[in-house]
Amino acid sequence: MRVQKIAILGVGLIGGSLAAAWRASQFAGSIVGIDADSNAAQSALRAGLVDEIMPRVPADADLIAVCTSATQIAQCVSDLRGHGGVIFDVGSVKEPIIQALEDHKEGVPAQFVPAHPIAGSELSGPKAAQAALFEGATVIITPLENTAPAAKQLVRDAWCDVGASVIELTPAEHDEVLAVTSHLPHLLSYAFMLQVEDQQMAFGGGGFRDFTRIAGANPDLWWQILSLNKDQVLGAAGHFESNFKRLIEALVNDDRDAGLRLLRDAAGRRIAAASESLHPGADK
Amino acid sequence: MRVQKIAILGVGLIGGSLAAAWRASQFAGSIVGIDADSNAAQSALRAGLVDEIMPRVPADADLIAVCTSATQIAQCVSDLRGHGGVIFDVGSVKEPIIQALEDHKEGVPAQFVPAHPIAGSELSGPKAAQAALFEGATVIITPLENTAPAAKQLVRDAWCDVGASVIELTPAEHDEVLAVTSHLPHLLSYAFMLQVEDQQMAFGGGGFRDFTRIAGANPDLWWQILSLNKDQVLGAAGHFESNFKRLIEALVNDDRDAGLRLLRDAAGRRIAAASESLHPGADK
Repeated sequence: MRVQKIAILGVGLIGGSLAAAWRASQFAGSIVGIDADSNAAQSALRAGLVDEIMPRVPADADLIAVCTSATQIAQCVSDLRGHGGVIFDVGSVKEPIIQALEDHKEGVPAQFVPAHPIAGSELSGPKAAQAALFEGATVIITPLENTAPAAKQLVRDAWCDVGASVIELTPAEHDEVLAVTSHLPHLLSYAFMLQVEDQQMAFGGGGFRDFTRIAGANPDLWWQILSLNKDQVLGAAGHFESNFKRLIEALVNDDRDAGLRLLRDAAGRRIAAASESLHPGADK
Repeated sequence: MRVQKIAILGVGLIGGSLAAAWRASQFAGSIVGIDADSNAAQSALRAGLVDEIMPRVPADADLIAVCTSATQIAQCVSDLRGHGGVIFDVGSVKEPIIQALEDHKEGVPAQFVPAHPIAGSELSGPKAAQAALFEGATVIITPLENTAPAAKQLVRDAWCDVGASVIELTPAEHDEVLAVTSHLPHLLSYAFMLQVEDQQMAFGGGGFRDFTRIAGANPDLWWQILSLNKDQVLGAAGHFESNFKRLIEALVNDDRDAGLRLLRDAAGRRIAAASESLHPGADK
């Protein structure tokens, strides 16, 4: 046992999976869930993910995981000013959250460690929670100059405990890389699905299925993420459009050399990613 | 046993998997492999996929599966004019192949049944062959007016034997729907990978992995497919671009209503596809 009491604000897919993993590892003496959605809260309690449901974060929580939607994180963290516990979030964007906290007269709390686990699912809610969700996953933390070293260490330990590897980036670096590796693919997959007619779906094979899986992700949550990281997403989208245009031009002009060069470049990058950098077990 | 002798022209992923499946079901008395690539041929023989390797299709083959790359199919089928066996191909485009055969003075052979299994992998070659590749898959056949009914029935039986469901479309319908459900996703995934830098790949999660899996597919093969189905692919790409533009505009204008409406439409289509039309076991 590493901490006495953990509070999880928002017991959906991410919060519920953290609870399940910490329970399995006995990382915490007890786990308290807080959720504005009483159905989700009761479901998490019944599933044994949390020991109890409380209306607010208890004063004696040592570690507080803010697993709410991205637009609520800054307010939740701000509401916890003065609480003695270490706080981290799991938001898919970092700069807008930190910016909102910096705008407050007390700035960003030293006990707050911004974090983002690169793990998830197109499913949501506590019923989709699974203890193994973070095994082998990368978690990006974006500590600031004033972040307390002990807070950072506890958050690192909490993520290592659930099987994740922790990497530090600046908030800007985080938002830039995630715009490319996560936000843009969602935007493309959603945009693509808009043209697929019902009667065409029966002809979707494994490629179609995998390419469009993320288009099944929660639209409200994703509109928030895309909006919050708007500038980076638009930059990445512009980059995409220029590459797409090059491929289309090669096709229009029957320019086999140019077309093949582009496809080979793309395939080479994907194959290198699969063999080196992607989450272990990637292409299973 | 349904047929005495099957000849498979091209013992790569698709040809090799057909061989493995027919062998397992004892559909054929014997299976002969023909492949210009002697390494692939020997590898298929060593793996026990085929009974023997021959330099050309034997005269007594009852069924001939043309599993070469799309640009070679019309020539291979034409070379088999006068052969008594039933012929089918597995090409990802249909109209250009049929057009090429129609341009010949004898037209499209009545024994030839154009076919396309919607199954595959970003891997290729006989080593990637697997008997279960077609289980639950859809196979589109595009018979013509002069196609011999008995030939069509044998090809249907051959695909049902490996666990596939057979659907009939016209060649034009096939090429139009596949441009949307397969060719465009490949083009988008390739185009996207062009902007992903090495150091960003470590931050790719499950969404990135699945979205980009098809960008690892064989570039030479895919340039052929995209080029052969160029008009339909360009049409589908134009449709995509206009939807992508609508999403980008909503983002630029902070138009939450429009943005959410689009994301919900897309997600709804994907979720309906997963529950109704996609290959069983799709989201496993």
